[in-house]
Amino acid sequence: MRRALELAGRGPLGPNPRVGCVLLGPDGSVLGEGWHRGAGTPHAEVAALADARSRGASTRGATAVVTLEPCDHTGRTGPCSLALLEAGVARVLVAVQDPNPVAAGGADRLRRAGVDVVTGVLADEGVAALGAWLPAVRRGRPFVTLKLATTLDGRVAAPDGTSRWITSPVARAHAHGLRAEVDAIAVGTGTALADDPSLTARTLDGGLATHQPLRVVVGHRDVPAGARLRGPGGELVAVRTHDPVEVLRALHAREVRHVLVEGGPTLAAAFLAAGLVDEVHAYVAPVLLGAGPAAVADLGVRTIADAVRLRPVEVVPLGPDVLVVAVPELAPSPTLEEN
Amino acid sequence: MRRALELAGRGPLGPNPRVGCVLLGPDGSVLGEGWHRGAGTPHAEVAALADARSRGASTRGATAVVTLEPCDHTGRTGPCSLALLEAGVARVLVAVQDPNPVAAGGADRLRRAGVDVVTGVLADEGVAALGAWLPAVRRGRPFVTLKLATTLDGRVAAPDGTSRWITSPVARAHAHGLRAEVDAIAVGTGTALADDPSLTARTLDGGLATHQPLRVVVGHRDVPAGARLRGPGGELVAVRTHDPVEVLRALHAREVRHVLVEGGPTLAAAFLAAGLVDEVHAYVAPVLLGAGPAAVADLGVRTIADAVRLRPVEVVPLGPDVLVVAVPELAPSPTLEEN
Ligand SMILES: NC(=O)c1ccc[n+]([C@@H]2O[C@H](COP(=O)([O-])OP(=O)(O)OC[C@H]3O[C@@H](n4cnc5c(N)ncnc54)[C@H](OP(=O)(O)O)[C@@H]3O)[C@@H](O)[C@H]2O)c1
Ligand SMILES: NC(=O)c1ccc[n+]([C@@H]2O[C@H](COP(=O)([O-])OP(=O)(O)OC[C@H]3O[C@@H](n4cnc5c(N)ncnc54)[C@H](OP(=O)(O)O)[C@@H]3O)[C@@H](O)[C@H]2O)c1
Repeated sequence: MRRALELAGRGPLGPNPRVGCVLLGPDGSVLGEGWHRGAGTPHAEVAALADARSRGASTRGATAVVTLEPCDHTGRTGPCSLALLEAGVARVLVAVQDPNPVAAGGADRLRRAGVDVVTGVLADEGVAALGAWLPAVRRGRPFVTLKLATTLDGRVAAPDGTSRWITSPVARAHAHGLRAEVDAIAVGTGTALADDPSLTARTLDGGLATHQPLRVVVGHRDVPAGARLRGPGGELVAVRTHDPVEVLRALHAREVRHVLVEGGPTLAAAFLAAGLVDEVHAYVAPVLLGAGPAAVADLGVRTIADAVRLRPVEVVPLGPDVLVVAVPELAPSPTLEEN
Repeated sequence: MRRALELAGRGPLGPNPRVGCVLLGPDGSVLGEGWHRGAGTPHAEVAALADARSRGASTRGATAVVTLEPCDHTGRTGPCSLALLEAGVARVLVAVQDPNPVAAGGADRLRRAGVDVVTGVLADEGVAALGAWLPAVRRGRPFVTLKLATTLDGRVAAPDGTSRWITSPVARAHAHGLRAEVDAIAVGTGTALADDPSLTARTLDGGLATHQPLRVVVGHRDVPAGARLRGPGGELVAVRTHDPVEVLRALHAREVRHVLVEGGPTLAAAFLAAGLVDEVHAYVAPVLLGAGPAAVADLGVRTIADAVRLRPVEVVPLGPDVLVVAVPELAPSPTLEEN
């Protein structure tokens, strides 16, 4: 299974899960390996079967070790459950069951056909390998990471609106690494107009990374012609609403699994107040401003007992700055319907 | 010298420097050891000479290893330079020269009398062992540590003024450790009235620590009768001014070497704007408030280029919180006169 997880990691992030599969002979020898290379390409199981065939190995009586439950539906590719049955696989070890109601059922079909199916093998690592995809598909909405880049006194800009740069080049490079992993970056129109950001994922040498997330602007105002957001980078999506639920619906419809909300304070507060933040990445710089907008606008909290409390999961010194990764103490609302 | 530094560490913090002394015979054997135990008690050199005498050792031709230049003035005790000469010491190794114009000159007097004096031995460690005392005496004003306890969005209280508790018990215990080391704690009248703090140094079991710093309240308003500040703890000192320079003058006159400014935002801003903060201890809690006073009130900074930039020297995770210890990028004004 560790090898299968390793193979899974080779797949791209995005709308589809990263899955790996290893086929083992009855003697434990590796017959074939495969992983999912993205939408429209063969699933990991099918790729592993093809690999075994190309090596001339027989898969009769083999064991398939796969990081996600084999699918049972015909999408752009046929159901994997059937492919495994046709190949004569006798045993299937699964890390994580498929949360997707459309695709799930593969384990059941295999069991009914007499295959020995074990689920939950290295389940925690399997969950980790699926990243934002798993909660996103479970809940029917993207996983939300809120990024803040603040001074020690919690400001995100000076009174005149300037905010370049609060954090150090090391912290900014780190933040670009995250941009390159998400499917979408969202800001409010206030930030779009004040900062004229490009919202691209850039490599260390300043060039555009291969993968560019969608660029999402939330609010009623227009992004002006000539804005950097209209320049090279991911597709620009204007979501003309103030409701974070609607934003996530629109992004889910576009198969966004992971959205990075980069502010400003108004948009950050709207997502936090709606309980729709799964994770906070706060880059804190050793800078003091004494004035200027705070990182988060009014949340309706009036007394200390009602504060939004987070549980830190990581503290990472980055040059002079420090990144605090934290998750809400109370699990955020699982689905959009419950908001 | 390492042994002398170790001995120095046994002395108390406070108005006098922590000094250690080791007397070595011509064969390198230890003849006597001493350290300074606080105001009115023998200096380290005199204590080491007494120790040697009580052991029956002759100090003729001995080497004195001492962490701070032997004093040359008659205070509550006689000049150490003379005591060393009378004891027939032939060689003196010194870590740090005395910055105090009144006490300095011991090395010169010894040299004129034919003693071989070497200064700057393990100077960096010597400076560290003297702590806040050295810069305080050099500059004629206390060393200033500014403590902030903030949320991730930089708030120090909720809109209704409640601020208990933003940081965790672990962070608060750590902060009490610092209180037990300083000579004074200062807050503005706003904090004194809003929080009714006791400003005592407490031990882990909640009892009062042996050493209690002065409790300083800055501003024109009175501390009401019945306030915790008038209860058990250090002496209460009201400094009826808004000028941080005057505050430091008053504290220097009371031989305060290290003052901890614990806020609130108005007082913090006044010290920062005057360039009178030597070190910032920012305890940042993974909490978001969205409203309430920010850690630092207006500093007059209007644009990002004028932000107060600090250089972090330590990042310490403390339970869920993180402590950032940072010093101003530009050295703060050395003396009060230059402000
Ligand atoms: N350091 C950092 O990390 C960082 C990051 C981002 C921004 N900033 C700074 O933040 C400042 C901008 O602050 P901001 O609060 O104006 O930015 P914002 O949150 O990006 O934009 C606010 C605007 O978005 C629309 N909007 C979207 N959702 C909303 C909701 N739920 N409620 C109300 N309005 C909503 C509204 O405009 P419409 O009228 O168009 O609907 C609103 O005026 C700039 O100075 C920028 O430099 C700093
Ligand atoms: N979380 C934390 O670490 C923390 C720490 C401290 C305070 N707080 C919170 O901070 C809030 C109090 O804020 P604050 O700003 O009022 O507190 P503050 O800075 O303690 O007190 C301000 C008052 O001090 C006097 N003052 C002293 N120096 C001054 C100067 N240079 N300029 C102007 N006034 C000066 C003035 O009162 P006079 O009229 O009497 O002269 C002024 O109103 C409370 O809610 C408290 O809970 C939080």
